[in-house]
Amino acid sequence: MTRIAVVGATGNVGRVMLEVLRERRLDDDLVLFASPRSAGREIDGRPVHVLDDGADLTGIDIALFSAGASTSRAWARRFADAGAVVVDNSSAFRRDPEIPLVVAEVNPHALRGHGGIIANPNCSTMQLMVALAPIHRAVGIERLVVSTYQSVSGTGKAALDELDAQTRAAIDGREAPEPSVYPDQIAFNVIGAAGSFPDGDDHTDEERKMMFETRKILEDPEIGVAVTCVRVPVRVSHSESVNVQTREPLSVERAVELLRDAPGVALGPPDVPPARWTPSPLQAAGRDEVFVGRLRRDESHPSALQMWVVSDNLRKGAATNAVQIVELISGDRVPV
Amino acid sequence: MTRIAVVGATGNVGRVMLEVLRERRLDDDLVLFASPRSAGREIDGRPVHVLDDGADLTGIDIALFSAGASTSRAWARRFADAGAVVVDNSSAFRRDPEIPLVVAEVNPHALRGHGGIIANPNCSTMQLMVALAPIHRAVGIERLVVSTYQSVSGTGKAALDELDAQTRAAIDGREAPEPSVYPDQIAFNVIGAAGSFPDGDDHTDEERKMMFETRKILEDPEIGVAVTCVRVPVRVSHSESVNVQTREPLSVERAVELLRDAPGVALGPPDVPPARWTPSPLQAAGRDEVFVGRLRRDESHPSALQMWVVSDNLRKGAATNAVQIVELISGDRVPV
Repeated sequence: MTRIAVVGATGNVGRVMLEVLRERRLDDDLVLFASPRSAGREIDGRPVHVLDDGADLTGIDIALFSAGASTSRAWARRFADAGAVVVDNSSAFRRDPEIPLVVAEVNPHALRGHGGIIANPNCSTMQLMVALAPIHRAVGIERLVVSTYQSVSGTGKAALDELDAQTRAAIDGREAPEPSVYPDQIAFNVIGAAGSFPDGDDHTDEERKMMFETRKILEDPEIGVAVTCVRVPVRVSHSESVNVQTREPLSVERAVELLRDAPGVALGPPDVPPARWTPSPLQAAGRDEVFVGRLRRDESHPSALQMWVVSDNLRKGAATNAVQIVELISGDRVPV
Repeated sequence: MTRIAVVGATGNVGRVMLEVLRERRLDDDLVLFASPRSAGREIDGRPVHVLDDGADLTGIDIALFSAGASTSRAWARRFADAGAVVVDNSSAFRRDPEIPLVVAEVNPHALRGHGGIIANPNCSTMQLMVALAPIHRAVGIERLVVSTYQSVSGTGKAALDELDAQTRAAIDGREAPEPSVYPDQIAFNVIGAAGSFPDGDDHTDEERKMMFETRKILEDPEIGVAVTCVRVPVRVSHSESVNVQTREPLSVERAVELLRDAPGVALGPPDVPPARWTPSPLQAAGRDEVFVGRLRRDESHPSALQMWVVSDNLRKGAATNAVQIVELISGDRVPV
């Protein structure tokens, strides 16, 4: 029996992690950890342990971290040293060249020879990679221009509460409470810079993640990535408007064939033209697939296509991929 | 005294049209028209006339149409034949090569020699042109990749009611009422295809408008336009994530200079870097300017910039521009 620790079990992603582990029957021997704020809590009858110097890390086979980068930096190596394989959902290790950054359907081979810590990509990158890897393998991707429509759950529970409180005030005709999580009101509004700006940078950290992680996962430092990350008043699922310029021309028909066979991708029903099928965040919420719609020629460029990529940011964008990595390293599907 | 008729006075744009006419002191002699549904209504003490075969069109100097393309096709020429200059806010005449399509700050010269009907551009094109014309004039625009975040008021009053009803249901934990205006729920959701699909087309009519109108207004059929039009749960103001590839390289500093001097454009405060200033729909609502933020280099292309363009779709995107055209043709600012 595999003992799996979930670190950050009470957060947005942590709770979905527990759901996905249950669905995939990996929940026989779970150990839950959270910050001291959650001391004394239980989830589904399981005690939530506080992650502090008294925490018992022995006997843990796999640890799924989703408690933010600072917790990962402080604790992931200690779990690994105690014998666990860590799958980390934070940004702490993604840029480390020694640490594999893995999308289960895209680059499972990168798991080979891991050193005890494996990084789970950022949610916005994750869904993009599932949709684009088949195209990159077939004809090569030259440049991407992406604009995102990211949901509030990606920021955490306090952000969802802020959306709810502001929405209720607006709909009741009251003054909305001052934003505290976001720099501007999110209810009935759009924030054209998701994430925060690293010192001296013109792009947000969220945009930098997509630029860097795309190249690392597709193992191609030459891919150009122009991205604008935007927060929208949606609870769950990120959407992305994607312009893909390929190295060799690619017809829509061939792209549909490639994506029809791609693991983890959902295209529309056969009677709806791929350019017209428009999956929505509500439709993708609670699902594991990456939905690809609006697939059409870009008439402004001889070798570019446009598409609309939607996926549940808490599931495939985080928890589901982490659990798929657990299956890959604990099963015999990819020998590591 | 100029007698101005407002056709479609009770709609979303019509009501803002009356506001803007009042602000600009052009409301001394107004005649209001609407469909038979509004028979007997008054707005600010003025009777709303029904537009039917009994309507009296004599003595009208200028007619502002915002009652949809079919009303414009049926009535605009009759108003013009009766002696009025028609400024039409629908899509009915925009593609007619004989009819000027005018953004007041961009191509007022196109008004010269008009034949009684002038077309007001689509709201999403309007704000884009105000932001891009100074750049096009300076270095030429080669190609645009645009993703929009369009507000619900652009669809009309029934759409705003649908957003409200669905939002209230969702926030109260009830099942949302079935969508009737949009093909999918709009509250807490995003619809990745704004507009509808013309027969056999892979792009929506809204996307086609931006592609066609951009080239007509900038008078350059060579500009490539890739666009995805998306509806978001925002009440007023459209946002646009814009990637501009120019014919000659353009530095961010020079772009800021060009836009700082451009009429109708609002940049951020001088102490905020142009790449970080992030205007929002709520901030732009009720204002006449086009707000340009997130202005930064696109690192994936030697001559491309990225920007975030936000404007009130009912004001500059429709009513304000129509009234500016009235000022241009009735004043002496542009001799026509």
